[in-house]
Amino acid sequence: MGMIIERIKSEGIAQLSYLLGSETEAVVIDPRRDCQIYIDHSQGTEMNIKYIVETHRNEDFVSGSMELAHLTDAKIYHGSGLDFKYGEPLEDGQEFVFGKMKVITLHTPGHTDESMSYVLTDLALGDAPVMVFTGDALFVGDVGRIDFGGPDKAHKMAENLYNSIFNKLLPLGDSVLIGPAHGSGSICGIGISKREDSTIGLERLYNPVLQKRNKEEFIQYKVAEHHEYIPYFRKMEEYNLNGPPLLEHLPIPRPLLPHNFQDEMRKGAVIVDTRNPSDFGAAHIKGSYSIVLKALPSFAGWVLTYDKPTLLVVEDRTHIDQAVRSLIRLGFDQIAGYLFRGVEAWYNKALPTDHLGLLTVHDLKKQLDLEDELVILDVRGDHEWKHDHIDGAIHIYVGHLERNLNNIPSDKPIVVVCGVGERASLGASILQREGFQHVSNLLGGITAWKNANYPVIK
Amino acid sequence: MGMIIERIKSEGIAQLSYLLGSETEAVVIDPRRDCQIYIDHSQGTEMNIKYIVETHRNEDFVSGSMELAHLTDAKIYHGSGLDFKYGEPLEDGQEFVFGKMKVITLHTPGHTDESMSYVLTDLALGDAPVMVFTGDALFVGDVGRIDFGGPDKAHKMAENLYNSIFNKLLPLGDSVLIGPAHGSGSICGIGISKREDSTIGLERLYNPVLQKRNKEEFIQYKVAEHHEYIPYFRKMEEYNLNGPPLLEHLPIPRPLLPHNFQDEMRKGAVIVDTRNPSDFGAAHIKGSYSIVLKALPSFAGWVLTYDKPTLLVVEDRTHIDQAVRSLIRLGFDQIAGYLFRGVEAWYNKALPTDHLGLLTVHDLKKQLDLEDELVILDVRGDHEWKHDHIDGAIHIYVGHLERNLNNIPSDKPIVVVCGVGERASLGASILQREGFQHVSNLLGGITAWKNANYPVIK
Amino acid sequence: MGMIIERIKSEGIAQLSYLLGSETEAVVIDPRRDCQIYIDHSQGTEMNIKYIVETHRNEDFVSGSMELAHLTDAKIYHGSGLDFKYGEPLEDGQEFVFGKMKVITLHTPGHTDESMSYVLTDLALGDAPVMVFTGDALFVGDVGRIDFGGPDKAHKMAENLYNSIFNKLLPLGDSVLIGPAHGSGSICGIGISKREDSTIGLERLYNPVLQKRNKEEFIQYKVAEHHEYIPYFRKMEEYNLNGPPLLEHLPIPRPLLPHNFQDEMRKGAVIVDTRNPSDFGAAHIKGSYSIVLKALPSFAGWVLTYDKPTLLVVEDRTHIDQAVRSLIRLGFDQIAGYLFRGVEAWYNKALPTDHLGLLTVHDLKKQLDLEDELVILDVRGDHEWKHDHIDGAIHIYVGHLERNLNNIPSDKPIVVVCGVGERASLGASILQREGFQHVSNLLGGITAWKNANYPVIK
Amino acid sequence: MGMIIERIKSEGIAQLSYLLGSETEAVVIDPRRDCQIYIDHSQGTEMNIKYIVETHRNEDFVSGSMELAHLTDAKIYHGSGLDFKYGEPLEDGQEFVFGKMKVITLHTPGHTDESMSYVLTDLALGDAPVMVFTGDALFVGDVGRIDFGGPDKAHKMAENLYNSIFNKLLPLGDSVLIGPAHGSGSICGIGISKREDSTIGLERLYNPVLQKRNKEEFIQYKVAEHHEYIPYFRKMEEYNLNGPPLLEHLPIPRPLLPHNFQDEMRKGAVIVDTRNPSDFGAAHIKGSYSIVLKALPSFAGWVLTYDKPTLLVVEDRTHIDQAVRSLIRLGFDQIAGYLFRGVEAWYNKALPTDHLGLLTVHDLKKQLDLEDELVILDVRGDHEWKHDHIDGAIHIYVGHLERNLNNIPSDKPIVVVCGVGERASLGASILQREGFQHVSNLLGGITAWKNANYPVIK
Repeated sequence: MGMIIERIKSEGIAQLSYLLGSETEAVVIDPRRDCQIYIDHSQGTEMNIKYIVETHRNEDFVSGSMELAHLTDAKIYHGSGLDFKYGEPLEDGQEFVFGKMKVITLHTPGHTDESMSYVLTDLALGDAPVMVFTGDALFVGDVGRIDFGGPDKAHKMAENLYNSIFNKLLPLGDSVLIGPAHGSGSICGIGISKREDSTIGLERLYNPVLQKRNKEEFIQYKVAEHHEYIPYFRKMEEYNLNGPPLLEHLPIPRPLLPHNFQDEMRKGAVIVDTRNPSDFGAAHIKGSYSIVLKALPSFAGWVLTYDKPTLLVVEDRTHIDQAVRSLIRLGFDQIAGYLFRGVEAWYNKALPTDHLGLLTVHDLKKQLDLEDELVILDVRGDHEWKHDHIDGAIHIYVGHLERNLNNIPSDKPIVVVCGVGERASLGASILQREGFQHVSNLLGGITAWKNANYPVIK
Repeated sequence: MGMIIERIKSEGIAQLSYLLGSETEAVVIDPRRDCQIYIDHSQGTEMNIKYIVETHRNEDFVSGSMELAHLTDAKIYHGSGLDFKYGEPLEDGQEFVFGKMKVITLHTPGHTDESMSYVLTDLALGDAPVMVFTGDALFVGDVGRIDFGGPDKAHKMAENLYNSIFNKLLPLGDSVLIGPAHGSGSICGIGISKREDSTIGLERLYNPVLQKRNKEEFIQYKVAEHHEYIPYFRKMEEYNLNGPPLLEHLPIPRPLLPHNFQDEMRKGAVIVDTRNPSDFGAAHIKGSYSIVLKALPSFAGWVLTYDKPTLLVVEDRTHIDQAVRSLIRLGFDQIAGYLFRGVEAWYNKALPTDHLGLLTVHDLKKQLDLEDELVILDVRGDHEWKHDHIDGAIHIYVGHLERNLNNIPSDKPIVVVCGVGERASLGASILQREGFQHVSNLLGGITAWKNANYPVIK
Repeated sequence: MGMIIERIKSEGIAQLSYLLGSETEAVVIDPRRDCQIYIDHSQGTEMNIKYIVETHRNEDFVSGSMELAHLTDAKIYHGSGLDFKYGEPLEDGQEFVFGKMKVITLHTPGHTDESMSYVLTDLALGDAPVMVFTGDALFVGDVGRIDFGGPDKAHKMAENLYNSIFNKLLPLGDSVLIGPAHGSGSICGIGISKREDSTIGLERLYNPVLQKRNKEEFIQYKVAEHHEYIPYFRKMEEYNLNGPPLLEHLPIPRPLLPHNFQDEMRKGAVIVDTRNPSDFGAAHIKGSYSIVLKALPSFAGWVLTYDKPTLLVVEDRTHIDQAVRSLIRLGFDQIAGYLFRGVEAWYNKALPTDHLGLLTVHDLKKQLDLEDELVILDVRGDHEWKHDHIDGAIHIYVGHLERNLNNIPSDKPIVVVCGVGERASLGASILQREGFQHVSNLLGGITAWKNANYPVIK
Repeated sequence: MGMIIERIKSEGIAQLSYLLGSETEAVVIDPRRDCQIYIDHSQGTEMNIKYIVETHRNEDFVSGSMELAHLTDAKIYHGSGLDFKYGEPLEDGQEFVFGKMKVITLHTPGHTDESMSYVLTDLALGDAPVMVFTGDALFVGDVGRIDFGGPDKAHKMAENLYNSIFNKLLPLGDSVLIGPAHGSGSICGIGISKREDSTIGLERLYNPVLQKRNKEEFIQYKVAEHHEYIPYFRKMEEYNLNGPPLLEHLPIPRPLLPHNFQDEMRKGAVIVDTRNPSDFGAAHIKGSYSIVLKALPSFAGWVLTYDKPTLLVVEDRTHIDQAVRSLIRLGFDQIAGYLFRGVEAWYNKALPTDHLGLLTVHDLKKQLDLEDELVILDVRGDHEWKHDHIDGAIHIYVGHLERNLNNIPSDKPIVVVCGVGERASLGASILQREGFQHVSNLLGGITAWKNANYPVIK
C-alpha cells in the first residue's frame, strides 16, 4: 500500500499545493483551479481524494477546491471565522485520518485570522509529527504577510503570527518537515528561499525573520515591512470567500483573424503578447502589453482588469494552454481569442505595428559614453535595485509603472532595464501604451551588463 | 482486407513518396530517409512492406530505401542502366503483385535515363490502370527537368521525355490518377501546381508544357528552360547511387553552452538560426544564416557544405526534431549541437550579437518618399520578380546571393525584400556575413506592401 | 499563394469532409462536429474559412457546420427544399469564388431530394472542372442509398439518382477527380471501395452499379438493395435539420471510482468497454457492451440510446479523447464518466466481473472435432458471411443481434465469430447482457481460422 | 538567481538521483543512464552541470555518469579505494562550491568501503548543513545493505555502517534534510519508507534500525538480515567500475512481423510481454515472461541474461519507450525488436498461443470450498507472506521461482497469487515456460481476496 506526500507547484505565482495520501485515501491542501493534476498524480496509486483542506482564504489565486470537489467525492474544509459560502469550518485540534496517516488541525492566525496549519503524523510510526503544512504562517526563509487587514490590524496580526510560529509551529520540533503555501517568486513573501524543502529546525536557525531578538522586534519588523497589493487580489478574496465560478473545462480561445481581432480590440479587449522580448520589440500590435509566457501569472494581475476581456498574441499556438491556465488561476476567465497565425498575419496585412528599440549592453554603454540625454528606467523590484544598478538610472517597479508615469521624462529616449529584459519589455510596453516615444529595452538587462563588466552602483 | 494508396510528403522539398498496400502486402515508392513514417502509417492496417521501388536516382534528397529495408523485410528496386550499389534493377514491363494490386514498370526516360514509372492496376476490378506513379517524368502542371545530363545531352533527354509522356503515360487514359515524385515547392520543377491530385486527362488538358504544339516545340522549350542546380545535389547523386550512410536513428544534437558553442564555431561549424525573421532581426549571433524552420529543407542546401558541421539556434527546443529531419534528408548529418537556452543565453552573457533593421512597409514607404540612397534588394525567384516588384529594386535570387555580392552597392543602406520576409532574412544574413552594414529586412515583404496598396511594377 | 484540396476523414464512420482553399480563402464541405481540425489544417496556409457547404442533410453523423461557423466568420449553405433551421439554401448553378477557385453547385437528387454536388474549377487554368464533390450521389465503387424516403419513394429516388449520375456527374468528363461524402466502412454504401481517390472515368469504367445495362436495371437494382437503418439515424436527421446542440468544447468525462461508477449504473447509464477483445474477455463489468475503441463510431449507434448516459471503461486514459470524439460525432453527448484506474480497480475491490471464453482457432477446431453441442454464431455482415463461413455456423449480423435473440439456442455453449474477434466480442457481450451462459469469442476469428487452413464453406 | 534541489526518481528500481544547482552551476548526484532528464530539468534555470558525483559503485543500475559527462562539460567524481576506470577519486572532507552552495564530502563506508555522503550547505545562510545525500548509508526508514562483500566481511561492514551513521551522519543535526540513493521499492533496502522526504531527526526517532539498543545489536541485526542478490547485479558492478558502454541514444527496437519475431525466438531471444495480467492471461506467445510495464525495472533482472537479446510484446507501441528505458537502466541493451501490431497479429496468423486461467477471488473461493486438489502458490515477498496469506498456500518469492520448481507439485492445478495479480502473472508465466499445465492467476490477488472479506491467516 502506498504513501504519497507530493508538492504541486503553480509556476509563476509559486503557489504550493499538496497531495497527501496513504493506502487508499488522499487529501489535497490548497488545490489550484485547473485541478486535473491532482487526479492525474493519484492515478498511479490506489488513493482516492477524500478531503480538500485550505490553509486560509488565499488572496493571490483562485481556489480550486470547488472544481476538485466537483470531480471527486471529496469534502472541502477551511478555518473558521470567515463567512465562507462553501466547505465546512474547522476548529483547532481536529483530526483527519486517511489510511495510516493523520492530519491534526492547528490554528495559526497571523496572516489571516482563520489561517490553519496541518500537522501530519504517520500512525505506523508514532505520534510525533512528521511534517507540518504551514500555509502563509511560515515559509522557507520568510513568514506570512500581516498587511491584509490594513494598518490598524497590523500590530495584532503580527503578534498573532509571532505566537503561531513561536508557540505552535516551532515547538513541533526541529526534525519536522515544513510544507508552506508559497515558494520563491510568490508575492506573499519577500524573502522566500529558492530552496523548497526545509524543516522547523532549519527555519529556527536560518529564517531571518525568526532571528529577531524578541516578540516586539518581530512585530515591529513585520509592521514596518512593505508589501505589494496587486489589484487583482480584491477579486481573489471575493472569489475564495464566496466560491469562484465553476469552470469544469479550460476556456478554449477562438482563433481570430486580424479583422476579428481588431473588432475585439474596438470592443475594449486588452492585448497580452506573450512572445519573448526580442520578438515583441521587433514588431507588435500597438497597445499590447508585453508579458512573456512564464511571467503571465506574476504580471497579468497588475495590468488586467475583470471588466475587459483578454486577447492573446502568442509565439506558437501550443503556448495557449499555458497562457489560459495562467489567466484562469487569477480569475481572468474572459479570453476573447488569440491572433490566428500570430503577428506575421498582422503585418502581412500591412496593419500598423509598433516596435521597441532593442539595445545590447554594448550599445547602451556606447550611448552612455556619448550622450547624456538618455533616461535609464530600472523596473526591477526594490531589493534588486538596492543591490546594484546602473549609475544614473531612475527606479520604478514595473508593477507601479502605469500609475507613476508622471515621474518619467517624456521628452528623452528611455531605456528600460530589468534583470534580463523581460520585465523591461512589459515596462516599455506600458510606456508605449501611454504615448511615450523612443522607448528601448535592454536585452539581457543587468545580467548582461554585469557579465560585460560594465560598472554598477551597489 | 484493406487497401491503401497514400501520398507522404516531405515538406519544404515537396518530395512525394507513396505507400501502396493491398490485403497484407505493401509497396513504398521513393521513401525518405527518416522512414519510420511508412511503418507508422501501415501500423493500423494488416499490410507489411514487401517492396521498395525508386522512380529514379533522386538528386534533391537522400533516398530512404536502405533505411527502410533495414527496418523491414522489403527488397529495393530501381531502374536499370546506372551502376547502383544497392537494390535490384528493373526492366520495362515487369510486374509486382501485392495483395489484389499489381504494379507494372514503365520505363519513362527523359529526366534521367533510368527513370521508371509505375502503373497501378486493381486486380479486383480489371486490367485498366487506376493510377500511375510518374516520378520526375510528369508532374501536376509541369514535367521533369532534362538538364542534369548537361547541355550536350539536353536535346536527347527532352526528346526522351516527350516520348515517355506522349507515347507511354498519356495513352494510359484520361481517367488515370497520377502520383508524381514532387509537388509544388520542389526545385525539380518550375511550374508544379499547388494542387496535388490530378489525372492524365487533367494534365493533357491543362499542363502548360503539354500544350506545346509538337515534339519539336516541346524539346525547344525544355532545352531553353533554366533550372537551379543547388550545390548539395552533387552529394545526393553520389549517395543515391552508392547508398547513403545508414542512420538507424536521428542524430541527437548536443545542448551547447555559449562557450561550447563558441568552441564549435571556432572549429568551423556553420550556424543556422531557424527563428522567425523578426526574432532573428532583433538579435542573432554574428555570422549566422537565417533560415526559418520550415524553409530549412529548401535553403540549407544552398549555404551548407558537407565539410563543416552545423550549429543550430532555435526558438524552442521542440523545433530541433524538425530541424534535424530537414538536415538529414539532405545528408547534412553532422550536427555539432544547438545553443542551449537559445539566444537569450548568449546575450545574457554579453556575447556579441548582430541585428538587422526591421522595417514595416509603411517605414519603407516613408523612407523611399524621403531619400534616394536606399537599395532595395529583391531576393525572390525570377517568376515572382517578373510578376511584380517595387520600382527601383534590384533582383538577385537568394540562392545566388552569396556568389553575386559584387553586384550590390556596399556603401548604401540595403533593404532586402521577399514575399513575406523569410527569404529576405536569409538574404540579409548572407549580406551581414559578408560584411555589409546597414542591412534591413522588410517585414511582410511584397505581400504587406501590396496589402498597403503601395505601388508595384508589373 | 497557396492552394489546398484536402480530404479529412472521420475514421470508423468513414465520413469524408473537405477543406478547399485558394490564396486567402477556404471552403469546408460537410464538416464534422469536432471541427478544430479544419482550423488546424488551414493554420499553415494563409487561408481563412469563408464558406461551409453541406452536400445534404447527413443521416449518419452530427453536422459540424454550426460549430465551425461559431469559430470562424464562415457562412453555412445547403441544398434547398428542406426546412433547415440554420444556414442558407442553394439553387442549382450558383457559384462560390474563393481565391482563384470556383465551386459551382449542381443539384444531384437521389439519395435525398435536396442533395447537392459541388463542381470545382481552377480559374487559373480554365473552365473545365477539376474535381466534383459528389456527396452521397456517387462514391468510389458505389452510389448513394435511396431508401431513406421509404419504399414508396424508392423508385423515384433511384430514378433521380440515375439521372443525377448519368446526366449530371458523368458528363463532367473522365478526367475529373471525385470527392464523395463517404469512404469504405461507411454504412451509407455497401460496396464502397477501399481506394479513396478516383475519377469520373474510373467510376464509369469500374463502379459496379454504373455497369447496369440501363436506367431500369439500375433502378431495380437500387430498389432491391438492402441497407441497414441504424437506430441513431433518426436523431441525426433531426439534429441536422434543426441544428445540433453547440458543444464549443469536447465533454470531459469524470473519473469515477468503482462506487461512483456503480451509482451511475444504478441510475441507468450504459457501459461501453473499449478494450480489446482478449482483455474484455478476461474480465469485464457485468452488463458492459464490448466495442473496441476504433469500432465505437460504427457500433455505438446500434446499442446506445439518447435517453441514457454512457459510462466508459478504457484500457488507457489516453483513449478517452478518441472515445469522446467518436460518441459526440453521433450525438451521444451525455457521458457520465469513465472508470478511474480501469477494470483492475474494479476487481481489486472484489466487485463482480464476468468473463468470456476466449478460444483460439485450434481450440475451436478440437472442440468441433469432439462435440456436436456447440453453436457457432457468426456475426459478420451479410457479404462476408456469403463469401465464406464455418460449416454449421448460424448467422446474425451483430447489429441485429439484440433484436433477434430468439433465434439463438440458449442451452448450448455459443462461440461467437467474426473477422478477427472484435465484432464477436460485441456480439458475445450482447448475449451475456441478455443472460446467455457459456459464451465464447473466437480470437482471430475467420482470419485466423483460414490462416490455420481449417475448412470454410464458400 | 536560482537554486534547485531536485530529486529525480527512476521508477521501479526506486533509484534516487539529485540535481542541485545554485546561480549558474549545478551538480548531479548518481545520474541514471538515460540522462537527458538532468539537462531538461536544468533548462528553465540558468544552471549548467559542472560536477557529477557518485555516492558509491551502485549495484542495481547502470551509472549514467559517463553519458551525462558526454553531453555536458561536467567532471565525474566518486569515492576512493576502488579501481574505477573513469572519473576522479574523492577524499573525506573535500569541498565543491557551485554558485552559493557547497558540498562537503563525507566518507561513510559500510554499504561499500568507498561510499561517500555529500553534505550540502548554503553559503548565503551559514555553515550549518542543510541537507545530506546519504547514498546507501541511510535511507528513510532503513539503512544500507552490508552483504555485498560476502559473509566474511559482513560484520566489519556493519560496524563501519554503524559508525558512519552514528558518528558522521546523525551528528549533522536533527534539522538536516536527507537525500538517500533509494526509495521504497528498491532492492537495496527492506523497510525503506514510502515517504520520500525525511530529516536526520525523523530518522533518529523513527528509523527502526537506528532504534537498536547499541552498536552490537545493530551489527547483529544487519549481519542476520537477508537480502536478495539479483543475478544482474554482477554486471552492474562490472559496468559501474569500468564504465558502461556509452549509448548516446536509446535503442530503437525494430518492428517485427510474426515470422521475423519467430526467427529471433529461434536464435534464442527471450520474450518479455509487458501487457497487463488479464491480457497476458487471455493469450500470449508460448514461452513469454509476463512482466507488466511498470514492473520491468524490478523483475527484468531476475529473468533476463546478458547473453540473450530481448523481444518485446507490448499493449501499445507508445509503451516501448518506457520498456526500453527500463531495460537499458539495467544494462539490457540488446533489444531484438518488438512484435509489430501486437499479439493480435500473432493469433490472427493462427500462430500458437498459450493462456492462463484467470480467476476472480470469488471463483477461487468457490473452488476451494469444493475441491482440495488445488495448489495455491503465493509469490509475494517474505514480509507480505508473513503479514497474511491464504490458508493452505505455499510460498516461493517470484524472483526465486525459476530456481525452485522442484518444490511445486506438477500434477495439480496451480493458482498463483500475489498482491493484485501482476507478480503472479510473472510467476505463472515462469511455471508455463517450465512445462507446468493448469496454471491460473488470481486477478486482484490478496487485495481483492481481502476486499471480499475472505479469510486470511495472519
